[in-house]
Amino acid sequence: MVQKTQIRAPRGTTLSCKGWQQEAAMRMLMNNLDPDVAERPEDLVVYGGSGRAARSWEAYEAIIRSLKQLENDETLLVQSGKPVGILRTHANAPRVLIANSNLVPHWANWDEFRRLEALGLTMYGQMTAGSWIYIGSQGIVQGTFETFAEAARQHFGSTLKGKFVLTAGLGGMGGAQPLAVTMNEGVCLAIEVDESHIQRRVATGYCDTIAYTLDEALALVREACSAGRPLSIGLLGNAAEIHPELVRRNIIPDMVTDQTSAHDALNGYIPAWLTLEEAAQLRQRDPQEYIRRARESMVTHVRAMLDMQKSGAIVFDYGNNLRGQALEAGETHAMDFPGFVPAYIRSLFCRGKGPFRWVALSGDPEDIYRTDETLLELFPEDEHLKRWLTLARQKIQFQGLPARICWLGYGERDRAGLAFNELVAKGIVKAPIVIGRDHLDSGSVASPYRETEGMKDGSDAIADWPLLNALVNTASGATWVSLHHGGGVGIGYSMHAGQVTVADGTPEAAERLARVLSNDPGMGVIRHVDAGYEEALTHAQQYNMKIPMR
Amino acid sequence: MVQKTQIRAPRGTTLSCKGWQQEAAMRMLMNNLDPDVAERPEDLVVYGGSGRAARSWEAYEAIIRSLKQLENDETLLVQSGKPVGILRTHANAPRVLIANSNLVPHWANWDEFRRLEALGLTMYGQMTAGSWIYIGSQGIVQGTFETFAEAARQHFGSTLKGKFVLTAGLGGMGGAQPLAVTMNEGVCLAIEVDESHIQRRVATGYCDTIAYTLDEALALVREACSAGRPLSIGLLGNAAEIHPELVRRNIIPDMVTDQTSAHDALNGYIPAWLTLEEAAQLRQRDPQEYIRRARESMVTHVRAMLDMQKSGAIVFDYGNNLRGQALEAGETHAMDFPGFVPAYIRSLFCRGKGPFRWVALSGDPEDIYRTDETLLELFPEDEHLKRWLTLARQKIQFQGLPARICWLGYGERDRAGLAFNELVAKGIVKAPIVIGRDHLDSGSVASPYRETEGMKDGSDAIADWPLLNALVNTASGATWVSLHHGGGVGIGYSMHAGQVTVADGTPEAAERLARVLSNDPGMGVIRHVDAGYEEALTHAQQYNMKIPMR
Ligand SMILES: NC(=O)c1ccc[n+]([C@@H]2O[C@H](COP(=O)([O-])OP(=O)(O)OC[C@H]3O[C@@H](n4cnc5c(N)ncnc54)[C@H](O)[C@@H]3O)[C@@H](O)[C@H]2O)c1
Ligand SMILES: NC(=O)c1ccc[n+]([C@@H]2O[C@H](COP(=O)([O-])OP(=O)(O)OC[C@H]3O[C@@H](n4cnc5c(N)ncnc54)[C@H](O)[C@@H]3O)[C@@H](O)[C@H]2O)c1
Repeated sequence: MVQKTQIRAPRGTTLSCKGWQQEAAMRMLMNNLDPDVAERPEDLVVYGGSGRAARSWEAYEAIIRSLKQLENDETLLVQSGKPVGILRTHANAPRVLIANSNLVPHWANWDEFRRLEALGLTMYGQMTAGSWIYIGSQGIVQGTFETFAEAARQHFGSTLKGKFVLTAGLGGMGGAQPLAVTMNEGVCLAIEVDESHIQRRVATGYCDTIAYTLDEALALVREACSAGRPLSIGLLGNAAEIHPELVRRNIIPDMVTDQTSAHDALNGYIPAWLTLEEAAQLRQRDPQEYIRRARESMVTHVRAMLDMQKSGAIVFDYGNNLRGQALEAGETHAMDFPGFVPAYIRSLFCRGKGPFRWVALSGDPEDIYRTDETLLELFPEDEHLKRWLTLARQKIQFQGLPARICWLGYGERDRAGLAFNELVAKGIVKAPIVIGRDHLDSGSVASPYRETEGMKDGSDAIADWPLLNALVNTASGATWVSLHHGGGVGIGYSMHAGQVTVADGTPEAAERLARVLSNDPGMGVIRHVDAGYEEALTHAQQYNMKIPMR
Repeated sequence: MVQKTQIRAPRGTTLSCKGWQQEAAMRMLMNNLDPDVAERPEDLVVYGGSGRAARSWEAYEAIIRSLKQLENDETLLVQSGKPVGILRTHANAPRVLIANSNLVPHWANWDEFRRLEALGLTMYGQMTAGSWIYIGSQGIVQGTFETFAEAARQHFGSTLKGKFVLTAGLGGMGGAQPLAVTMNEGVCLAIEVDESHIQRRVATGYCDTIAYTLDEALALVREACSAGRPLSIGLLGNAAEIHPELVRRNIIPDMVTDQTSAHDALNGYIPAWLTLEEAAQLRQRDPQEYIRRARESMVTHVRAMLDMQKSGAIVFDYGNNLRGQALEAGETHAMDFPGFVPAYIRSLFCRGKGPFRWVALSGDPEDIYRTDETLLELFPEDEHLKRWLTLARQKIQFQGLPARICWLGYGERDRAGLAFNELVAKGIVKAPIVIGRDHLDSGSVASPYRETEGMKDGSDAIADWPLLNALVNTASGATWVSLHHGGGVGIGYSMHAGQVTVADGTPEAAERLARVLSNDPGMGVIRHVDAGYEEALTHAQQYNMKIPMR
C-alpha cells in the first residue's frame, strides 16, 4: 500500500475523535507527516534519515482508525509504529502508550535491527518521529541556539560576532544550524551534499545563501567575518572532502561541529567522492560496503576536525555519534573533542531545563503569539527567554501546525502549562494546545555519547532513568507516553522517553498538566542530584523536592 | 552499614504506613529478606546468585522510611534498589515504580554492570527479588510442575512414573525441581555442589534424601524406577564432573535439564574440580580466570547433555542461559537442545496463562486455604488446577508470609482477583491479599534464549513488549510496577516487567484489579496474536479483545 494523497492535520475545533486527547494524538501524528514538516513523507520518514511516524501505511491507517474509535477510558498500544491493542484503563491514564525500536541489549545492533525491520517487525522511531511531537526545524533551532549561545558565553564573550562556524548537514534538524548561528550574530558555513536540502533551508529563511564552490563560500565567510555581519552559507559538497581541504589550506574556523546523520552509516551519511546517485546505487547493491566506506569517510571527517581543534578551533560533537562511528572504525582519538551536553547543556539539565514545546491545534498562528505573550508575562525577568521569543517570532516560519519551543525548567513548565490551559479555558486561544518535549531532556534519556556523557558519578550507561521517566509520566496522566531505543545516536547507544499532554481547558487537564509538568522535569533534577551535581541539589532544595537519600 | 537483626514482615492488620498499598510494598520487601525466604539475607540477596531486594542496607532503610511516610497520592521511585524520589501522582497511580539493572544496550555486559555495581550505582534485581514478590521455592515449584507435566504429557503419556530425571542446582529456584518431579511421579537425581543447599531442600521436604557418592545415588535411582516409586535424591557433586561420568558409564537418563545459576558465570556456577572454598578464593583473587574456568566447565556440562540427547534422552534448557554461555565459550552445538518455553510453555502463553501468585498479609496460612477453596469454586472444571492445589497444600511448606501460586490465563486472573478482594471485603480472610506474578510471564518479557526463544515471526529480540507491559500496568493502576534487565538469563539477554496489586477489599481496589488482571495477561495474548499464533487469536476472539490489525 502506498499513500496517494498528502497528509495535513485537520485544523479548528471540529472533532473527528471522541475527545480532545485522542484528537490531539491523531492530529500530531498527521502533522508529523505533513509535507511541510516531514523530510520524506512518502516513506513515512519524519527526520533523522530513517525516523518514522508509523511502521507502514496500513499501520498508519489503523492507528488513525483506532484513535477515532478510542473511548475516553481506553488506551491504544503502539509497538514500533503499529497499533497492537486497545485496552480499558481510566480517564486519568494516557490515551496512547508507545514503545519504538527497543531490542534486547545483546541483539541491539544495526544488523539485527535491519533484519527485524525487513521482516516488518519494527521501525526506527528516532526521538520525536515515532512519538508524534516533531515540529520541524524550529524544534531544534532553539536547542542549537541555546548551545551556540552558551558556547559563545564560555569562549567568545557571549556573541559569535565576527566568528567563523563550520558545520555539515542541513537535514531536518541540522538545517537549524545556520539560523542558530546568525541569531547569535556569527557566520556559518554549512557543508551539505544534497542541493535540494540547501535550497529548502534557503527557501524557509534558515540559511541565507547557497554556494557551489569552496572559494566562493570562503570569500563570503571572510567578508562577513570582517564586517561583523551575521551570515549563513550552505556549501554544496561533502564534509569528508571539504574539511580536509580546509586543513590543507590551513583555514581554521573558530568553531566546528557536525549534524550529518552519522549515527546511521547506511542511510544518514554519504561517503566521500560519491554522487548522491552513486551512493544510492551502492547502498542498494552492497550495504556492507556502503557502511565500510561511510565509516572510512567519517574517520577522514573526524581527523580534519581533530586537526582544526589542535590549531585552536573550538570543536564539539553535536549528538550524531560521529565520534562513536569513527572510534569503531579505528580512529582512537575520536573522543578527543567533547560532546555538547557536558560542554554546554548539563548545567541546564541540573535545573530540569530542557526543550519544552507546544502546538496550537487550531492551526492559527495567532494562538502561538498569544502563548508567547503569556510566557513573557509569566517570566518577565528572563532576558534570555525574551530574546529568543522575539527572534523566533521574526525569523521562524511555522511548518505544519503552528508551534513554539523554549527551554524551561522544573518550577517553570507547570506554570506555563497551567497558563496555557487557562488560555484555552477562557477562549483566548481557539482550540486546545498540546504540550510536549523532545526525548533529549534532562531526566528522560540515557545516552553515554550524548546526554549522559561524562556524568559526575560515572552513571552514563545506567538506563533505569528513562524507564522511570516513562512510568512516572504514565502515572501522572500524560496524554501519550513513548519509550524509544536508538534515536539520534543510533541503535545500541541510547534509551529515551517522551510525553505529550493536552491542555484542553478543563480542570481535569489542569490537574494532569500540573502533575506531568512537575514530575517530568522533576525526574531530571532528581537524576542529577543522584549523580552528585550540587547545582541540582540546590534547585531541589529550593523547591522542597522529596529525595529520600539526600 | 550491616543489618544486625533478622527481618520479618509484620503480620496482622496494624498498619505502619498510611495505606494498605504502601503497607503491602513494605511487607513484601521485608518478606523478600526474611531468612526463611531469602538465600543470603545478610547480603540482601534473595535468590538467583545475586538477585537483590535493595541496593544497600542504607537504601533498604530509606525505602522502608519512605514507604511509611508515603501519602495515598504519592509515588516512590526506586532506581536499582535505591529510593531516589517521591512525586505527587494520584490515587489510581502505582505507589511504587521500580527500574532495576537497566543499561544502555551497547554497555549491557557483565563487565560494565559489575563496574557500575562496584561504584554503588546499580544492583542485580533478578526477576522477583528487586520487585518484591519472591515467595520462596513454591513460586517456582508450580512453574516446574507445569513444565514437567507438559513434558510428561508430550513424551511419556502424562506421567514420569518409572522415569529417571537428571538435573543440577538446588538453589532458591532449582530446589523446586525434585518436588516437581516427584509430584509428577518420577525419580529425580539432582547434582548440587553445596551440601547445605541439599540439606535445606531435604529439611523443607522438597527433596527426599541426600547422597554422597554416585554409586549410592544410582542404586537409589534404579530401585525407585523399577518400583515405579516417586523419589528425589540430592547428590553432592559438580555437574561438570558427574554428567560426563554418567556418559562414560553409558547411563542415560530419560530426561535432563539444569538449574545451576549458569547465567552468572562468576557468582552462580562452580567450575569443576574446585571445592567451594577454592572457588571462593579464585573468585576473589582472579575473577577473569574464574569466569574462564566456569565457562569451560559449562562446555563440558553441555557436551554431556548433548551426548545424552544423542542417546535418546529428552534434554531441555531450563532458562538459566547454560546454552548461551557454552555457545560463547565455543560450543557451537550448544543450541541443539531446546529451551523449555518453545517446547512446553508457549501454548499456555498464547492464552495469557502464567504464574499468577498471591500472598496473605495477615500471615495466617488459613487465609491461603480460603483462597485455595475460592479458586476451586471458581474453576470447578479445571482438573489440572485441582490436582496442583491439592498437592501444593499437602507438600508445600510456606516460607515467610503464606503464599500460593497457580497458572491462570486471560479471563481467569481478573475473576480470581475480584473474588479475593471479596474475601477481604467480607472479612473471610483476615487482612488484604497482594496479587502479583513472576516477570516470566506471557506478555511481560523479551528474552530470546528463554521466554521468547523461537517466536513464530522471528520477533524474539523485540523488546517493545515488556516496556508496553510496564506502561500498561502503570496506566491500569497496579500498586507497584517494575522494569528489569538481566534476570534469570543474565545481563544483556532479557528485559522484563512485573506488577503487584493489592486486594484490600475496597471498591477502588476492585476496579484496579479488574483492569490490571485483564490488561496484564491481555498483553500476553496480544503479543502472541501479533506473532501469528492461531491459538492466541482464537483466545482473543473468544474474549472480544480489541486488536486493530487483526
Ligand atoms: N543535538 C542533538 O541532540 C541533535 C539534534 C538534532 C540532530 N541530531 C543528530 O544530528 C544528525 C542530523 O539530524 P537530521 O535530522 O538533520 O538528519 P537528516 O538525515 O535529515 O540530515 C542529514 C543531512 O546530512 C547530509 N549529509 C550526509 N552525509 C553528508 C556528508 N558526508 N557531507 C555533507 N552532508 C552530508 C544529508 O544530505 C542530510 O541533509 C542526526 O544524527 C541526529 O540524530 C542531534
Ligand atoms: N525456568 C525459569 O525460568 C527459571 C526458573 C528459575 C530459575 N531459573 C534459572 O535457573 C538458575 C538457578 O536459579 P536459582 O535461584 O536456583 O539460583 P541459585 O544461585 O540460588 O542456585 C544455583 C545452585 O547451583 C549450584 N551450582 C552451581 N554450580 C554448580 C555445579 N557446577 N554443579 C552443581 N551445582 C552447582 C549452586 O551451589 C546453587 O545451589 C538461574 O540461572 C535462574 O535464572 C530459571
